[in-house]
Amino acid sequence: MRYCSNCATRVELRVPQGDTLPRYVCPACSVIHYQNPKIVVGCIPEWEDKILLCRRAIEPRHGLWTVPSGFMENAETLGQGAERETLEEANARVQMGNLYAIYSLPHINQVHVLFRARLLDLDFKPGLESLDVRLFSEEEIPWDKLAFRVIREPLKRYFEERRQGKLGFHMGTIEEIRQ
Amino acid sequence: MRYCSNCATRVELRVPQGDTLPRYVCPACSVIHYQNPKIVVGCIPEWEDKILLCRRAIEPRHGLWTVPSGFMENAETLGQGAERETLEEANARVQMGNLYAIYSLPHINQVHVLFRARLLDLDFKPGLESLDVRLFSEEEIPWDKLAFRVIREPLKRYFEERRQGKLGFHMGTIEEIRQ
Repeated sequence: MRYCSNCATRVELRVPQGDTLPRYVCPACSVIHYQNPKIVVGCIPEWEDKILLCRRAIEPRHGLWTVPSGFMENAETLGQGAERETLEEANARVQMGNLYAIYSLPHINQVHVLFRARLLDLDFKPGLESLDVRLFSEEEIPWDKLAFRVIREPLKRYFEERRQGKLGFHMGTIEEIRQ
Repeated sequence: MRYCSNCATRVELRVPQGDTLPRYVCPACSVIHYQNPKIVVGCIPEWEDKILLCRRAIEPRHGLWTVPSGFMENAETLGQGAERETLEEANARVQMGNLYAIYSLPHINQVHVLFRARLLDLDFKPGLESLDVRLFSEEEIPWDKLAFRVIREPLKRYFEERRQGKLGFHMGTIEEIRQ
């Protein structure tokens, strides 16, 4: 952020009075431009013993597989966001189920919210942001071709819990891997 | 939003190629300025059969009571955010417990995340944004002086569930009340 989106003056980075963190502040109109984490919503669409994954047609991780998910939009609920993303990326209709996992990703300022969902029919096909959309049984999951750790971790847990017959909500943190 | 925060050009509101919603787009540098929901994190700090509430020293709802909560910041986890807010508003140290409730508030583009927490000591006192901080038993809760519906609903549920001996996670939506 370099300019005030309200009046186009060059912003300053400073701690406003009564605050504890540096913010972009406009010296002309005094607007404080807060920056906050974004929410990514998605779901695990289930059909019998299989789940639906999308192969990404966009960066990052072009060509790798993920569950339908994306940035939550203004004016929608978490469940509506996950439903919309599933329609956009897989042209798939789902009935949203229980919340399955929430991960904080503090190094990239995101919170990922993942539901379980029931796929309502098999008339899915890739949306604009997908190269391919397919159903996978546990044995078929392309574990080495999954796009993100925030997908791999809950999916590992999902199949493990499913084998044990107890699917429960989990909250976690995905930290940056320093190499 | 009127000007591009990257180059100070007047932004246009239009649907970018491949997108479905209108966004603020810069005609000069092509940056798309997405606007997404914000996360509010908070907790119910518990001490024996009482919970801690703060009386707001700021607008909106100056003078009314609420649980410690506020906007999640970049670079923190949900739990860290709730812990920080509790320290800022009540100078209270807590150990974060289970997730208790998540509410989508689509009419104001917010998602509220509420934990249960264990108050670690009684050395709390009002922070800058609080007029007063107190422990309340169920009978003492100022139900008609609570600041927000998104606080009243989970607190009603909390005491009801506690009486029944089963405190469980709940997900919901708070819609705008049209009058």
